[in-house]
Amino acid sequence: MAQSGGPTAVINASLAGVIEEALNHDCIEEIYGGLNGVLGILQERLIDLAEEPQQAIRGLRYTPASALGTCRYKVRKDGDFERIIEVFKAHNIRYFFYIGGNDSQDTADRISKLAAASGWEMRVIGIPKTVDNDLVVTDHTPGYGSVIKDVATTVRELACDGESMGQHDLVYILEVMGRSAGWIAAGATLAKRRDHPNDPPHLIYLPEVAFETNKFLDDVSDVLKKEKYCLIVVGEGLVDGNGNYISVSDGGQDSFGHSQLGGAGDYLKGLIDQNYTGVKTRSFRPGHAQRAAASTASQTDNNEAYLAGKAAVQAALNGVTDKMITLIRGDAETYSCETGLADLSEIANGVKALPANWINDDGVSLSFQFVKYASPLIQGEVAVPQDNGLPSFVKLGKEPVQAILPGYEITA
Amino acid sequence: MAQSGGPTAVINASLAGVIEEALNHDCIEEIYGGLNGVLGILQERLIDLAEEPQQAIRGLRYTPASALGTCRYKVRKDGDFERIIEVFKAHNIRYFFYIGGNDSQDTADRISKLAAASGWEMRVIGIPKTVDNDLVVTDHTPGYGSVIKDVATTVRELACDGESMGQHDLVYILEVMGRSAGWIAAGATLAKRRDHPNDPPHLIYLPEVAFETNKFLDDVSDVLKKEKYCLIVVGEGLVDGNGNYISVSDGGQDSFGHSQLGGAGDYLKGLIDQNYTGVKTRSFRPGHAQRAAASTASQTDNNEAYLAGKAAVQAALNGVTDKMITLIRGDAETYSCETGLADLSEIANGVKALPANWINDDGVSLSFQFVKYASPLIQGEVAVPQDNGLPSFVKLGKEPVQAILPGYEITA
Repeated sequence: MAQSGGPTAVINASLAGVIEEALNHDCIEEIYGGLNGVLGILQERLIDLAEEPQQAIRGLRYTPASALGTCRYKVRKDGDFERIIEVFKAHNIRYFFYIGGNDSQDTADRISKLAAASGWEMRVIGIPKTVDNDLVVTDHTPGYGSVIKDVATTVRELACDGESMGQHDLVYILEVMGRSAGWIAAGATLAKRRDHPNDPPHLIYLPEVAFETNKFLDDVSDVLKKEKYCLIVVGEGLVDGNGNYISVSDGGQDSFGHSQLGGAGDYLKGLIDQNYTGVKTRSFRPGHAQRAAASTASQTDNNEAYLAGKAAVQAALNGVTDKMITLIRGDAETYSCETGLADLSEIANGVKALPANWINDDGVSLSFQFVKYASPLIQGEVAVPQDNGLPSFVKLGKEPVQAILPGYEITA
Repeated sequence: MAQSGGPTAVINASLAGVIEEALNHDCIEEIYGGLNGVLGILQERLIDLAEEPQQAIRGLRYTPASALGTCRYKVRKDGDFERIIEVFKAHNIRYFFYIGGNDSQDTADRISKLAAASGWEMRVIGIPKTVDNDLVVTDHTPGYGSVIKDVATTVRELACDGESMGQHDLVYILEVMGRSAGWIAAGATLAKRRDHPNDPPHLIYLPEVAFETNKFLDDVSDVLKKEKYCLIVVGEGLVDGNGNYISVSDGGQDSFGHSQLGGAGDYLKGLIDQNYTGVKTRSFRPGHAQRAAASTASQTDNNEAYLAGKAAVQAALNGVTDKMITLIRGDAETYSCETGLADLSEIANGVKALPANWINDDGVSLSFQFVKYASPLIQGEVAVPQDNGLPSFVKLGKEPVQAILPGYEITA
């Protein structure tokens, strides 16, 4: 098994699910992890997960980020795929579980098909993972519930802070992750108490709604008139009417000429500073701390991530291959979730957008349908063991598996 | 009672301590809160705290920020002080408890002296509060333990994220609060496990150590050689050898020409981007979310904040006035803490610096003396009740006390 892409607070729970389920089945003789995703497989950097202490595997349930290491390497060369099959053959690897997002599911799909074509009998199952919640077919993606629980918690806490500052017009801007979709920014709306539509966040700016400066300034002014302070949540991937990212960097306002995202919040702050004197504005950017926030992770999300790992092993042992585990929501009023299967190729080629009709006409708030969808995903708190006042996370021992093949050159 | 200055995660615990202790004493007939610190007293905006539901007062124990509202108004005019005494006389206020930092203790001191001079018999007690931990005499300040527990928790979580990214040189920069002293940035060192000096944070930049660009670039390069990733914590108040704040704004690199702090992290990111190609750098700025982070607050800090509130009422009833409650650490190896008293004037005129000999010679790490000092302050987790997956904070009903006096004009 291997992990890929941006880490989440619960990706290791899926890893724990795979390992613990694999241990239940005698036909699985060894349990190997590839370090840093598919890169570790290419380079034959494998570790023996069955050698890890049981306590470490248990600890994966609440340790954020990718314990095996991750990568953003996109396998493109045919040679790479052939090498992967070679490594699998060298170590008699008959099951491959890849935990990741769209790109990883695409890689898994190609590996699966090449194995079949080259007569190497094996089963390949993808396990969904991404804070971005943008995988198709699955109702939602492990990692999403935890990141929006963290964002909504921060909004509730910041709201107390902002409200207490009183006397002067005050704007707090919280920039959240989400490069191409507003799923994470939308999740901030859960901070509103039921039947309190005027609770913070007062305004949510989503990548799905083209940003207009004048409307923004009017929105802020309206909230300040009513509330004296205004809490704004903005997705880092905010774009203007031409599809250009809104950020300080873009307008050449940053001497370093950066092009990466992360400046939407600072840009909005600049607009308020330039147009409204006497308004105090603060912009906050927790960045990757959001996706690593195990302390405010969702138990529901954690359970489902673990379940997806176990389900992947069960499916493979039942003869399934070239599929990704999906999460299927029950029809009843009370939330329930079970796993299903989808073709890897179907996952790899799609991106799930935030439904347009879940965004209210004002463009800065979410409908009750979104709340109904997202609220069950943040229920329950993960109990992280504490060590001397701080969360105690595990590190794997990473006992290497002896390499057999000659070295392999990676070309980035 | 009133609250002043920047909020903390536990300032309301002090408020709860004052209210609950006051209710124990028959000689206290009414319990009033001034809204937005001394401003509410000047404007006779008082609320009847005895009318609040008991559940709300209990909820103050875990609700962040200032439930009464706060202010940054600095009382300067003689007329203001006379007005305050007038308001106290009009409502027969004989006890005044002011929860705040240096400026607030100065205000309390002046009120106390003017009351005595004008023959109005009353008792004035200050209750310490600040995330900055910069009040003299007291061993530490309520609010500090919680903010460094939050910072160190974030470092542990980000460290998992950074470590898992593997393959490429990676730098994470976490900018933390602390305008004039490095107490908060220093607290990040608690994220290191015992006997693991190379654990993140790898480098801590403190306002106490003049920033030098070349040394910084060398520091980063050294860490990357050993660890492949480097987690930096920087205090927002970082200064160069001339005492100028290090920030993107200062060098005119920001078209908005801002002067406020908050750019130290982005500045360091810029230096790395300009000097090291192939190093990926991300800068994070959680800002006020740190001081509002009730979800990762310290139970020890919370208990002490509550205790300080109760002790203030007990002292006043014993005839004490013109003093601030202090926290006194026990001499034994096992941490203990009791309250003491110090003259308000002594608190108002001092600033407690991070001891120079607690900073190691490398300028980027803290000695074991600091760890011994700070570690007990972050012990224990506050159990925040959850409502539908999110922390459930209280809002006071704020029943107004009928104003008696003519209005009063505030001159800012």
